[in-house]
Amino acid sequence: MSFSPLIRQLVEALRGLPGVGQKTAQRMALHLLERDRSGGLRLSEALSRAMQHVGYCQQCRTLSEDPVCALCADPRRDDQLLCVVQSPVDVFAVEQTGFRGRYFVLKGHLSPLDGLGPEAIGIPELLARIGEGGFAEVILATNPTVEGEATAHYIAQTLADRDIVISRIAHGVPLGGELELVDGGTLAHALAGRKPISLR
Amino acid sequence: MSFSPLIRQLVEALRGLPGVGQKTAQRMALHLLERDRSGGLRLSEALSRAMQHVGYCQQCRTLSEDPVCALCADPRRDDQLLCVVQSPVDVFAVEQTGFRGRYFVLKGHLSPLDGLGPEAIGIPELLARIGEGGFAEVILATNPTVEGEATAHYIAQTLADRDIVISRIAHGVPLGGELELVDGGTLAHALAGRKPISLR
Ligand SMILES: [Zn+2]
Ligand SMILES: [Zn+2]
Repeated sequence: MSFSPLIRQLVEALRGLPGVGQKTAQRMALHLLERDRSGGLRLSEALSRAMQHVGYCQQCRTLSEDPVCALCADPRRDDQLLCVVQSPVDVFAVEQTGFRGRYFVLKGHLSPLDGLGPEAIGIPELLARIGEGGFAEVILATNPTVEGEATAHYIAQTLADRDIVISRIAHGVPLGGELELVDGGTLAHALAGRKPISLR
Repeated sequence: MSFSPLIRQLVEALRGLPGVGQKTAQRMALHLLERDRSGGLRLSEALSRAMQHVGYCQQCRTLSEDPVCALCADPRRDDQLLCVVQSPVDVFAVEQTGFRGRYFVLKGHLSPLDGLGPEAIGIPELLARIGEGGFAEVILATNPTVEGEATAHYIAQTLADRDIVISRIAHGVPLGGELELVDGGTLAHALAGRKPISLR
C-alpha cells in the first residue's frame, strides 16, 4: 500500500458505500483530494447531519428529520388513499408517478426465516395508522417479489374484516424486481391497474 | 421531491463523487440511513480529516498528511531510480508492479491551451529534486496519451544535458489510455521494457 493512513482510511470508508469497490473508492478519494476539497467537506457535513438528525416520520415511518414529514403534513393530499411500501426509496418512486395520497413505510418485508415477523416490519403501527380512520382504500405497493407478495397478502388478510378496499399494484411491475428500479412509466401503469385483493 | 431537506442535501453531496448520478446517490444515502449509520459517520469523519489534513509530500509531491511521505522516508528503496508520474493514483499503480525506486508526482500534464505550462505542473520542483543528485535514471511514466507523451518529451529535453539516463515506459501500455486503468501485468511489462529516450 502506498497511500498515507488518512487516505487509506478514506478509501476504506468509501468502500462502505453500496456498489463501490477498491478502485472506484480510490478514484473518488483522489478526485476529492485533488480537485474538490470543498465538495468533500460538504459531503462530510451532509453525512454527519443526516446520520445524526434524520429519524422516522411519526405518521408514515419514512425517513425524515421532522417529527411529521412534509408529505404527511401536506393538507392538499388525498386522505382517503393510503399507499403501503416497504422502503423510503419507494415513496420517492411512487411519488414520481403522480400519486397524491398518503403513505406508510414498512421496515422491509416479512421474513420468517430471518425472524422478521409482523412486529419487526411495523405492521402494528400500520394497523394503528389505518385505525385512525378515514381511508377508503389501502394500496399495497410492496416489492413484486415472493417476499413482497407474501407481505401484501398477510396485510390483506389482517385487514379483511375492515370496510376498506385493499388493493395491490398491478403486475405491470416485473416479477422478481425491486420497486425502486422500475421506470416511472411502468410503475404509473401498475398503480393505475391496481386490483382489489381477493382472499380466494 | 419527497425527501426531507437533510436527505436531499446528502443526495446532492453524494452526486459530487465521480461516476455517481441521482439514482446511485439516492441508493447510497438510503443505504447509510437505513442500514449503516455508523459507516456513514465513519465516512464523514474520514472525509473531514482527509480534506483538512492531507497535503503534499515535500519530496515527491504525492498526497500525504506527513511532510515527507512513507515512500520517500523508506530507507530501503533504490535512491538511483526516479519514476515520474502525473498523479498520486499512478504511484499506487506503479508500486503494485514491484517498482522500488523513488517517485515524483507532477500535477497532471502540460496543457498549453489551458495555460498549464511547466511551472503549473511542478517541473521546477522536479528539476530541483533531480538536482539533489544521486539518480542514475529517471523513468518518465506519464500517461500514454498525446499530452503525457508531450510532457515526457519536454522533460527529456530539459534533462538532456545531465548525466542521467532518461527513459520512458514501453508502449506495452495501450495508447490513449489512463495509466491508473492499466492492469498490473501490462504496466509491469511496460516498466520492464522501458527505453532510453533519444532526442533524435
Ligand atoms: Zn410522513
Ligand atoms: Zn514522498
